[in-house]
Amino acid sequence: MTRIRFHQELEELKHRILAMAGMAEQAVDLAVEAYTERDLGLCQRVLTNEAAINRAEREVDEFAIDLLAMQQPMAIDLRFILAVIKINADLERVGDQAVNIVQRVMNMIELAPAELPVDIPAMAARARAMVRDALRAFIEGDPELARHVLVADDEIDRMNKEAFAALSACMQSKPDWAAQALDALSIARNLERVADHATNIAEDVIFWIRGADVRHGAGQSLAGS
Amino acid sequence: MTRIRFHQELEELKHRILAMAGMAEQAVDLAVEAYTERDLGLCQRVLTNEAAINRAEREVDEFAIDLLAMQQPMAIDLRFILAVIKINADLERVGDQAVNIVQRVMNMIELAPAELPVDIPAMAARARAMVRDALRAFIEGDPELARHVLVADDEIDRMNKEAFAALSACMQSKPDWAAQALDALSIARNLERVADHATNIAEDVIFWIRGADVRHGAGQSLAGS
Repeated sequence: MTRIRFHQELEELKHRILAMAGMAEQAVDLAVEAYTERDLGLCQRVLTNEAAINRAEREVDEFAIDLLAMQQPMAIDLRFILAVIKINADLERVGDQAVNIVQRVMNMIELAPAELPVDIPAMAARARAMVRDALRAFIEGDPELARHVLVADDEIDRMNKEAFAALSACMQSKPDWAAQALDALSIARNLERVADHATNIAEDVIFWIRGADVRHGAGQSLAGS
Repeated sequence: MTRIRFHQELEELKHRILAMAGMAEQAVDLAVEAYTERDLGLCQRVLTNEAAINRAEREVDEFAIDLLAMQQPMAIDLRFILAVIKINADLERVGDQAVNIVQRVMNMIELAPAELPVDIPAMAARARAMVRDALRAFIEGDPELARHVLVADDEIDRMNKEAFAALSACMQSKPDWAAQALDALSIARNLERVADHATNIAEDVIFWIRGADVRHGAGQSLAGS
């Protein structure tokens, strides 16, 4: 494979990881819409889409591995491909969180609606923005944006702690809503985990870019041994 | 680097990922002991160890990347090294779960002791066994043992669902213990996540072994294009 061809394949890999990200983000959107609308049909769509996300994950992995196997990539390309493989795994797990959310939503739909002291859509918007920013940092090779994602994670943790405090107080003051409050607590945690995956992605971006900066001579330690 | 030397380096990589697994497993053990003993000193040790685990993760990653950069590995070795990189990330997150657990334990130590309807040590023992088995499956290249880990995950999910039901009932019947019950609920979830990471590792083992079986000609699709 020529070097130009190799770079075309890297571009293709970039497009595929972006498509994977789009699927994972959409899964979270649908799950949160299922929550606000109490919509069983949307829950079902998230469950169906999961299989497609898992398939896409395997395809991205195989494509990346084929690229590694084809040509001994330069250190910078090697790190890029490894970052894709790691990011891919995190995106698949974002999809898993969407599934966890709709499992709770399906439970809530069978219960009476409750006015719960938690703003799930606001948390979801934050978590979603973090995933989007982390991917943008990756595509644009922007370490500042990646670091911004790491900072945003503290905000989500704070929102989750608030949700925890408010919902556990609610459980005690309104025992009739305890089951719904627990479901909402789970959903808030799942969104926190979405944010954690965005954080992982941002760390991978920093790892990749730092490698690009300082490790052009990657492998020297072994080469010299 | 000669082929023999390369295989020595692969052995070294195997030792390093085992050492990493030992650190992650120990962190979970200490966290659960901190829970049963209500021991703040043990909590502190888990928090201190986390930095060492993070450092070990980076070192394993760099070692694996150096190996990839040094020599175009055969498809089977390539997949082995990639499996190490993925397993490494999961082990680091097992360490994160131990940190999450001791954060809850530190909260519980400030509250009155409560008799909670959940057997945390039993859940921890299961989750720990899964991590150990997943690593053993990797070291021994044993796909049956890896599949056994996937089955064991259902058992942990069942234990977690039971804990959820029992603890949420407890919250309603004994509001004085609601805070403690919520902490225990979190800890049970964290243990379920440890099991999830073991499951991820088992899947990576199957991916690696399957690649070894069927993909000796990895990269053919790109090679032919």
